[in-house]
Parts: sequence; C-alpha cells; structure tokens
Amino acid sequence: MKTMYWEDNQLYLLNQTKLPDEVSYYPCKTYQEVIKAIKTMVVRGAPAIGIAAAFAMALADIQDENLEKAARDIKESRPTAVNLFWAVDRIMDSDSPLDEALKMYEEDIKTNQLLGEIGSQIIEDGDTILTHCNAGALACVDYGTALGVIRAAFNSGKQIKVICDETRPLGQGARLSVWEMQQENIPVKLIVDSAAGYLMQQGKIDKVIIGADRVTRGGVANKIGSLMVALAAKRYNIPFYVAAPLSTFDTEKNIEEIVIEERGREEVLYYGKSRIAPKNTEVINPAFDIVPNDLITGIITEKGILEPI
Amino acid sequence: MKTMYWEDNQLYLLNQTKLPDEVSYYPCKTYQEVIKAIKTMVVRGAPAIGIAAAFAMALADIQDENLEKAARDIKESRPTAVNLFWAVDRIMDSDSPLDEALKMYEEDIKTNQLLGEIGSQIIEDGDTILTHCNAGALACVDYGTALGVIRAAFNSGKQIKVICDETRPLGQGARLSVWEMQQENIPVKLIVDSAAGYLMQQGKIDKVIIGADRVTRGGVANKIGSLMVALAAKRYNIPFYVAAPLSTFDTEKNIEEIVIEERGREEVLYYGKSRIAPKNTEVINPAFDIVPNDLITGIITEKGILEPI
Repeated sequence: MKTMYWEDNQLYLLNQTKLPDEVSYYPCKTYQEVIKAIKTMVVRGAPAIGIAAAFAMALADIQDENLEKAARDIKESRPTAVNLFWAVDRIMDSDSPLDEALKMYEEDIKTNQLLGEIGSQIIEDGDTILTHCNAGALACVDYGTALGVIRAAFNSGKQIKVICDETRPLGQGARLSVWEMQQENIPVKLIVDSAAGYLMQQGKIDKVIIGADRVTRGGVANKIGSLMVALAAKRYNIPFYVAAPLSTFDTEKNIEEIVIEERGREEVLYYGKSRIAPKNTEVINPAFDIVPNDLITGIITEKGILEPI
Repeated sequence: MKTMYWEDNQLYLLNQTKLPDEVSYYPCKTYQEVIKAIKTMVVRGAPAIGIAAAFAMALADIQDENLEKAARDIKESRPTAVNLFWAVDRIMDSDSPLDEALKMYEEDIKTNQLLGEIGSQIIEDGDTILTHCNAGALACVDYGTALGVIRAAFNSGKQIKVICDETRPLGQGARLSVWEMQQENIPVKLIVDSAAGYLMQQGKIDKVIIGADRVTRGGVANKIGSLMVALAAKRYNIPFYVAAPLSTFDTEKNIEEIVIEERGREEVLYYGKSRIAPKNTEVINPAFDIVPNDLITGIITEKGILEPI
C-alpha cells in the first residue's frame, strides 16, 4: 500500500488520520491543499512529507502559480523535518517539476529498499526490536526506513519480534506501526510509551531502531519521546539505531539550531473523542526531541551504516 | 476532598475512575466490594489502598466473616503496593478492626501533612516541579505525598509551577494530578509522558518528585514510566525525589523480589471509548517499574529525608 499516488494531475494522499479503521485517499488539486494535508498530518513522516512537497510544487506549476512563493509557503508548513526543504529545493533546481517529483517518488522506494537491506545485517535471528513512532512504509512512499529494516530482516527469514510503543499524542506507533506489522504477519506487541524502559530493564529488548526527522551535527531530531527511549537503551546497553535516507541529513546545521515544532493542545487533551484532562488545562506539546550523538550506535542509510555526524 | 469516609458501617470510596468529570462515591457494605474497588482502581494509590484495605477488614469483622480468609483475599487484590499488606497485618494484630482502621485513617492525613512540611524544604522559590502519576490527596486519604510536598511549598508562599505527565494507560496524571492542582490554583501544565525528557533537555524542570508503591532494598517500585523519568533526570542533573510514608517501606525485600503487576490489554487499547490500535492487537501492560537507588536523590518521609535503602 502506497502512502500517495499521482493520477490525472492530482495527488492522492492516504489519509493517515483515519488509519487503521478506514483506508481512504485524500485528493489534492492544488498546492494549498497539500500544505493543509501536511499541517493536519493527513500525510506525515519525514520522507513522505518530502515527496508530498515535491508534488505540491508540481501542482503549483500546473496551477501557474509563482513557484518562488509556492516554495516559501510549502516550506512553512512544518519546521522540523528537513526532507521538506530538500524536496522543494530540488524541484526549484529542476527543469520540470512534475517529472522531477515523479522521479523522486520512485527513488524514495528504491532508497528504502536498499537502506532496509543494509540495515537488516544488524538484526540477529531471535531479536526483539523496539521502535518508536512510525518510520514505516506510511512515513515514506512505501517500504519504510526503521520498519523497512525490520521488513527486510523478516523477509530474509529471521525470526524476529517487534514492540511498538503507542507514541502519544497522535498514536503513530499504535495506529500505524502496529497495523503495518500486522499486514505482513510480523509478530508485534503494543506498549505505552513509558513502558519501554521497564522492558529494557527486564532484558526483553535486543535492539532499538527509530527513524529521523533531521540528522544534524551533534544529534538527531525525531518524534517526541525518542530521547527517553535512547536514554533507557544506553542504561541497559541496548544498541540504538537511527534509520534515515541521506535526504534527512542536514550537515550544515548544529542540532541546537533546529526548530522544534510546538503543536496544539487539543492533540494532548483528547484521544479520539475522549477528553483526558479537565477542559481548560494548559498543555505543552512539543512534536519532536533531540537524541544526542553519544546515545546513537549508528545511522542506517542507503549508503551504509554511518557514525552520527 | 477526601478519597474515602466511613459512615453507618459502610465505606464510601470516591470513584476515581470517573474523575475529573464526575465526583461520586462508591459505597461498600462488604469486604468483597472493597476488593472489587481496589482491583478496578475505583480507589488507587499505595496509601489509599492501604486504608481501604483496613476498612475492608473492619467490614469483614462486621460481616462475621473468617478474618484469616478475608486477610488472604484482600492481600490478593493487587500485588505491588506494600501498604495493602502492612494495613491488613496491622488490623490482624489489633483488638478492634474498626477502631484500628479509623485510627489509621486519621494517621494517614497527619503523616502526609508532616511529610509535606519536611519535603517542602527542598523546594525553592521559582521551581518548576515535574511529577509522574498521582501521588496526591487522591492517592491517600487526603493531602498526598508528592503533591503534599508541592502543596506545603505552595502554601508557604513559594512561587512554584507544576508539570504533570499524562501517565498512560490510565491517565492518573492528566485526570487526577492536574485536577488536584487546579482545585488549589497551583499553576500546572500537562505533557505527554514522553515529553518529560525534552523539557529536562531544555532546562525547564528544576526538580522531580514522585510517590512510591514500595520502597525496598535497592530501589523503588512505582507507576510504570517512573524509571524513564528518573533516567532523564539523571542525564540532566535534576534532583529526583521519592515521597513516601514509612508504611510504604519494605525493608525485608530486595527490589528484584517484587512482583510487578501486569494488567489487562483493554487499558492500553482504549482511551475512554476510543480504540487506539487495531482490535486484536497484543499488548504488554506492566503497571509498575523499578527506579534503582542510584537514580534517587532522597526519599521524603514523615521522619525526614532519607537515603534510599
């Protein structure tokens, strides 16, 4: 299942806010509609956001909009994932936005398959692997980064088990990663975010693999909670890997310079229709945190397993 | 507001599963009803479970039940909090179950007030304090342990702010601790459990205070997630305190011997009526974890601030 496809000059995005209960596609005829889809997380995951942004530029071109302006608007949709900026710049440097976007779309799948194959070498038969959030097919065009590594290991015949944490507030682990693993019959169990440390303390996790929204000098920005998982892995000597294509690398910035997106309070106050705290409660809702390099065992890319930068 | 009271030979428990939206009391005429209330977390929090268990023994006595059998049944209701065992044993050693339970009820309030006063010395003007789960009035008969320390500091005129984490799966932080702080106009903000590390990384937390379900040799058992908070506090050199009355101490056991309760999958799969993952998802749901002594700055008790045992 692909997270997006292009047909008749429209971009169709798998609506991830409706998963796992409903599989539906969200059509975008204009670049503004794609921006809305990125902001509301109809499409999410750093690589997928990048490719959606490339198609948004193609739509702006078809709409005969000013591409400079469209590029600025699209870059403002979300601040943390670097793939968004990488994709828009690549389209601006190309001769044909649509052809370039379609090329990037195909590349994303191939990159992930290669990354998965390379990463699968670190997985041993019998491993139980913890992953946080969703760095799966749903975070990319297809196949996935962290879950791509798991897929490749499973498909090569290794007996593995996966633990997904819920990933509050939006539940990408519970809703998306668990579902992806179940679709392929990979053994998977769900825990609350705060139980990861306990499972490590009990010796029940062999490896951790997460994705990345930006790999920079000094650390990796990824979904809120990645830091606490990394600290627990360090304490219990569990290898902690980041899986990310080179399009997620930002070698020009230090980690301290990265803007961490702060999202709305409703995301924390509600789960579906259930309110979980008194109505007027104030909330702090950072969408990402930073895993410092000393907590990272290696970064799995399509060019090999690299040291943190 | 008290979490329980005794009237006309019945125990009335504030139904904490309905908070913060509904304040209602759950009447228990029999010790079996109290056991059910403990299991379903109508009453929760180590000290409150202890006093409820004492009243359960008083009910068994009024019912003319075999007290030895009632004691065994009550002790089996939840395995981790030691106060349950302490309270039942104390009733068994007394001449009059009801008189002893009423005495323990009054003692609980006084103990917490004393503990709060002692603990408030570690709080400085301007501190932002993170707490996990609910070690508040709602976890005791009244006043609270960790939140008792915060109350005492606030009431002595110190300008403090409180951050409560949600505490999945049952949301005791979001539903109970936030609500308790709001009732007394203590400034409070809510975060998801996995955001605690990020706030510490950003220098936004000055101290952590949590409660305990059992203080043993080598470490403290407390609500799932306490370990990950403690690891983050250690990384960022933030003092990490446990607030617990001496009735929570178990000096006879090593932490490795403690039974960690595993609860049902529905707690993780649902939040209110919202299901958060595919229907048949397998779940691991430990209710507690263990904070090793090297992560603990001190244990605040009614007899002073002690070193971990």
